[in-house]
Amino acid sequence: MSWQPNRQSNMPLQQQIVQWVTAQVERGDWAAGTKLPTQRQLAMQFDVNRSTVQQALEELKAMGILEAKVGSGVYVTHNSWHALIQQTQPNWQTYIETSIYKPNYHTIQLINEYEQRDDVIRLGTGELAPSLLPIEEIEASLRELSFQPKTLSYSSPQGNDRLRAAICHYVQKRGIDAQPQHVCIVSGALQALQLIAVGLLEQGSIVFQEPTSYLNSVHPFQSVGMRMIGIQRNEQLTQTLAQRKRKKQAVFYAIPTLQNPTGDVWALQEKKQLYEACQASRIPIIEDDVYHELLFEEASPPIKAMDSSGQVLYIGSVSKTLSPGLRIGWLIGPTTVIERLADIKMQTDYGSSAISQEIVLNWLQSGKYENHLIGLRQRLQERADFTERILQEKFKTLANWNKPKGGFYIWLKFREPLVDKDFFMKLLQQQVLINPGYIYDPQDHHHIRLSYAYASYDELLEGLQILHKCVVETMIGRNKE
Amino acid sequence: MSWQPNRQSNMPLQQQIVQWVTAQVERGDWAAGTKLPTQRQLAMQFDVNRSTVQQALEELKAMGILEAKVGSGVYVTHNSWHALIQQTQPNWQTYIETSIYKPNYHTIQLINEYEQRDDVIRLGTGELAPSLLPIEEIEASLRELSFQPKTLSYSSPQGNDRLRAAICHYVQKRGIDAQPQHVCIVSGALQALQLIAVGLLEQGSIVFQEPTSYLNSVHPFQSVGMRMIGIQRNEQLTQTLAQRKRKKQAVFYAIPTLQNPTGDVWALQEKKQLYEACQASRIPIIEDDVYHELLFEEASPPIKAMDSSGQVLYIGSVSKTLSPGLRIGWLIGPTTVIERLADIKMQTDYGSSAISQEIVLNWLQSGKYENHLIGLRQRLQERADFTERILQEKFKTLANWNKPKGGFYIWLKFREPLVDKDFFMKLLQQQVLINPGYIYDPQDHHHIRLSYAYASYDELLEGLQILHKCVVETMIGRNKE
Repeated sequence: MSWQPNRQSNMPLQQQIVQWVTAQVERGDWAAGTKLPTQRQLAMQFDVNRSTVQQALEELKAMGILEAKVGSGVYVTHNSWHALIQQTQPNWQTYIETSIYKPNYHTIQLINEYEQRDDVIRLGTGELAPSLLPIEEIEASLRELSFQPKTLSYSSPQGNDRLRAAICHYVQKRGIDAQPQHVCIVSGALQALQLIAVGLLEQGSIVFQEPTSYLNSVHPFQSVGMRMIGIQRNEQLTQTLAQRKRKKQAVFYAIPTLQNPTGDVWALQEKKQLYEACQASRIPIIEDDVYHELLFEEASPPIKAMDSSGQVLYIGSVSKTLSPGLRIGWLIGPTTVIERLADIKMQTDYGSSAISQEIVLNWLQSGKYENHLIGLRQRLQERADFTERILQEKFKTLANWNKPKGGFYIWLKFREPLVDKDFFMKLLQQQVLINPGYIYDPQDHHHIRLSYAYASYDELLEGLQILHKCVVETMIGRNKE
Repeated sequence: MSWQPNRQSNMPLQQQIVQWVTAQVERGDWAAGTKLPTQRQLAMQFDVNRSTVQQALEELKAMGILEAKVGSGVYVTHNSWHALIQQTQPNWQTYIETSIYKPNYHTIQLINEYEQRDDVIRLGTGELAPSLLPIEEIEASLRELSFQPKTLSYSSPQGNDRLRAAICHYVQKRGIDAQPQHVCIVSGALQALQLIAVGLLEQGSIVFQEPTSYLNSVHPFQSVGMRMIGIQRNEQLTQTLAQRKRKKQAVFYAIPTLQNPTGDVWALQEKKQLYEACQASRIPIIEDDVYHELLFEEASPPIKAMDSSGQVLYIGSVSKTLSPGLRIGWLIGPTTVIERLADIKMQTDYGSSAISQEIVLNWLQSGKYENHLIGLRQRLQERADFTERILQEKFKTLANWNKPKGGFYIWLKFREPLVDKDFFMKLLQQQVLINPGYIYDPQDHHHIRLSYAYASYDELLEGLQILHKCVVETMIGRNKE
């Protein structure tokens, strides 16, 4: 809404506002049911008196385009179009509300929106800072690429053959024995989950996972009618899985290395326990392994390395290590499953970007990728240390946390359950964007996912100061009540 | 299946085959329910006597790993795993069969598979031949790219801002008035349809379209439980739309310029009629305009150019003109709708490849794109003329067709309804791949979609000769019956 009334025009400001609102509705930009900003906000935006806005809104209400709902605000009416010319515009809002896919949670929509702004300190972002991305080296690798004639055509269902072979070679070092026919290239790990959701699971399937999980903040599974069940990684796990009703299909989603958001690293014994429990109950495992390259110490083998029976679907990606903008990940599993999911991928987007695939191939084959990882881990370790020092200074009495073992995150637990939507909004008003714990576990109001990977050192310092102040104020407010 | 028995080994060949099959099942590559090739095929593949294969299969049946079904073949048993060690492997085949998404039709799976082979003449392919792609120029543009720090990070929900601005500028020439907030970058037109299917339509919605349509060969809408209704573009259209029951949501899908597969170009009057009919019935229109750049004569304005009420969702792409491997298209519509679909895109794949977006931006901004199109149209025209000359020579008494107005296709209609799966397979056995009409309209056995855009001149000549022979033989066979 960058529109401004024209003060040189002969048309009164009030009338200009009426015309502008009408145009928004007419073009479908403001659908039926859209809530308008407050009079105060509109007055500020248009730089006019509030009374001018008020008069314009009254006129629009009289025209039947807007309506006031008591105690709630002003809305575009459902028959605004009838009022305007005739009943022509599709009722987009109804289309949206009744459609199949759920919208992102509002907090996540706000995070997606504010992550685009340069004036915001991003304390929770799950990606590398631009300064940690090897931008010049990627530019240089573009200069090296030369394409075979078919490279720029539609890709084969499972993706670039040479890239799949290079991925097999790469995961071999992680103890995974795979052939190119076991690999499907995907546009990032999230797409792999999406394909599994629609290509392998029936409506009402059960998705087991840890109670606090990244998977609660996106919803490839919820949107297609599946049940998410949080399950602790302890002695009862085997028993709980064995008790499930066999009628419904089930799958276990796990991030055993640098769990998102908790940063946990499973012991080898825990991986083994999960594998055996799932094997006994014939439950497939989705092993999301996109952070393992960022472990500060040596990684133990993934569950997939134990998998002799084609029971684990393994997901890797370069989004957390090389560049999210490439949109390249991979899914490794039994041929039957991989062919099925590749077939769906062909129906979804006809494959991933050929050029992105060539770049990843170039980085894997040349050894540049693994070289880059060495330096990257070092810089992440420095950022982790810096951030922990600030936490030690400022948050020792307010919160707990574990020393990060790698990756991007510190799972910061406040002593009091103060992390709610208000807390999130309060920080956002001060230009500080956090990832609150409740997007990973709706019951959780103690945690935030603190990322040391994105903000600059100065921003980390400033952002944590603002966070500290906000925490203290919120605690004082809570104790007064 | 490139496995070969080891003739130097002490293990009998029969035993080696048993071990190899067991390993396939054990690893999950051959899931329960997988049908084995015939004994004859296996004997050829392994280069052993058929009796050796037979003995090995008998042993595997005795082990409970394989079972014969009378008159159907040999299958991996559902308790093969039980037989092997214990009941551990997830029953992938059941997972696949009961899941939400439909597989591609078998003919389309075969097309996807055979399009990857170099020894096949592709007479139906919907993409430019590698020789028509500006590969060297794209390589050169890679050398020009330099990225801003944030380019390689996660993208904003609607995609690269500068690319969206460039697209607005580009479609302006087509008479479309759009601002960047009306544009969402997608990974090709098919993804746009996918997003519309899940983000705007409820279960059971009606998708109107022409009876013969590309949309019948993919199924973004069918998979989410929508009804496809074919509707002729004639005087009754308005009435038919008006008669639909209002209870269910509906949408009209159209390719008014160079329809796929028929090659039809709608008259301006026909576009107007559809727009007004849909406006009267408040039905949104999806206008798929991915071929318009390939029209040999000047294009008339799209429906979107008439759209004053935000009723048309317009789809464009570079897949048919610049490179399918880039996976870049765009969707233009009212802000409310675009924001909704961008939100879902963020939940699906976190955006399209940043590098692909930069390349398209570079080509649009520099004018290289439009220059390329001039030469491309010329070369397609030459290919169309060449192909028509062969048709005139060989198919005049066997088939009808319209002179192509642009794009890739001639919608070749045989006098007799001979185009069925057998016909398709018979050609495939001779290394000729066609796109049969029945994948675009299940009732249609008269047409094939002939593409002059992919095969080389030699291949076109040879492929059409084989096609001719096959048509004549099939007709003789039919007339004998």
